Amino acid sequence: MIRRLAVVGLGLLGGSAALAARRRGVAREIVAIGRRPDALARAVADGVVDRATVDVGEGVRGVDVVLLATPVATIEALLPDVWRVADPDATVTDVGSTKGRIVSVAEALAVSRPLAFVGGHPMAGSEQSGYGQARADLFVGATVILTPTEASDAGAVKRVSEFWQALGGRVVILDPELHDRVVGMVSHLPHLLAFALVDAVLRSDPAAVGFAGRGFADTTRIAASDPRIWRDIFLGNREALAQSLVAFRAALADLERLIAAGDAFRLEAALGRIRAARQGL
Amino acid sequence: MIRRLAVVGLGLLGGSAALAARRRGVAREIVAIGRRPDALARAVADGVVDRATVDVGEGVRGVDVVLLATPVATIEALLPDVWRVADPDATVTDVGSTKGRIVSVAEALAVSRPLAFVGGHPMAGSEQSGYGQARADLFVGATVILTPTEASDAGAVKRVSEFWQALGGRVVILDPELHDRVVGMVSHLPHLLAFALVDAVLRSDPAAVGFAGRGFADTTRIAASDPRIWRDIFLGNREALAQSLVAFRAALADLERLIAAGDAFRLEAALGRIRAARQGL
Repeated sequence: MIRRLAVVGLGLLGGSAALAARRRGVAREIVAIGRRPDALARAVADGVVDRATVDVGEGVRGVDVVLLATPVATIEALLPDVWRVADPDATVTDVGSTKGRIVSVAEALAVSRPLAFVGGHPMAGSEQSGYGQARADLFVGATVILTPTEASDAGAVKRVSEFWQALGGRVVILDPELHDRVVGMVSHLPHLLAFALVDAVLRSDPAAVGFAGRGFADTTRIAASDPRIWRDIFLGNREALAQSLVAFRAALADLERLIAAGDAFRLEAALGRIRAARQGL
Repeated sequence: MIRRLAVVGLGLLGGSAALAARRRGVAREIVAIGRRPDALARAVADGVVDRATVDVGEGVRGVDVVLLATPVATIEALLPDVWRVADPDATVTDVGSTKGRIVSVAEALAVSRPLAFVGGHPMAGSEQSGYGQARADLFVGATVILTPTEASDAGAVKRVSEFWQALGGRVVILDPELHDRVVGMVSHLPHLLAFALVDAVLRSDPAAVGFAGRGFADTTRIAASDPRIWRDIFLGNREALAQSLVAFRAALADLERLIAAGDAFRLEAALGRIRAARQGL
């Protein structure tokens, strides 16, 4: 049981973590830190958090676990403030969708002042955003990737693992760079393609969307995701994303070649191979 | 009320059309023509069709409306047979996802023997296929595009429109070439991208799929579609698909440029504009 938990950023993920922690009795006291007084007031009124503040220093002081749940660029920017005010035995973790840079910033700060940090990424959420969308069951059955390094405190890794498991998550440990490559491929690339696909229709044939069926709707659902969150993710993971795009372009070019050549036999074989893999998911 | 309806191809679309026509009393007698005796026998046993045959000539003879519901290359290949045996006052229509070539083949045949043909494309279906997936409500609320030309018989267009409306569809009239461009954009392109995305992951990082969340699952659902159907569609609509890919590549390249340049302001603006359009669907 955590004595005092601070959640910085009360959007979909932070709000859901606070809500789940409250419902499941994971923390005795929960403090919310955010920019929007209305969401903070609502969380206090709901009883989801015990107190709330717009001041990071005030919110983080005297806390056992700090969960950073803002867009990733803001997580990076907040780390020095957290480092200044957090208790020496506090554990700091986050929910950012990119891990390499955040972990580097934390480890650089730890050189001058030791403080336990464990990078985290719950693979939950949706195209929805904001505290109004928070759900106590958001992390139930979700994969939560933690990215400790050799420099990480073993007790802190255990504490963060237990936190997510208590919220219903399935914890997996990955190296920060491998994490970024993997999510670049299965999350960031699909988001970028969905945005580009919607944009392609808008530019070339806006009236065509009137004929879109369920295939288009599903394929582009995530193009309704929060622009501020995805701006940060695309920029924060641009190297891995660029690598994913190389693989994607190669795969697309191969299919196009078979189509242009009218090679029905090889095209059907390729689609069949891909379908079988997709059905196996 | 149709006196006698022939459905050629008893897969998801043909099977659902037969089932819906039976349930809604749209046709007095329904004949199924297919290649697979087991599906045919099952449809007869279910009472969905009155009789079934693997012989197109036998099945189509004496019929008022012929609905061609096979993969598109097979529709093209079947048209000369249908033309040979169909009654002079029969109406022939189809469910093919590409229309330009099918309509051309039909109009070429009509030069030597007049017979009413109306191209059709119900925008229904899913990544599922086969008679086992057929549903009586598949076309309820679905857009059904019909592609008559100046050469089309007005009575036949009315008959086919009423058929789909009786099955719950919303009929829209489009020029065959415009149809192919529109569905190339909102259906064929998303399918090709979904196949390529799955393939990119398989080639570069197969273990990454273990970390895929709902975004990846939704974006690639249609990559589990039938390879034979999609081989025909991609090949049959390759020109329009190639045009869609030009628009897609331009949209993707613009987003990539903003990411590579680290232009957070313009990137967020672009994502915001795309999101607003997607939310408006």
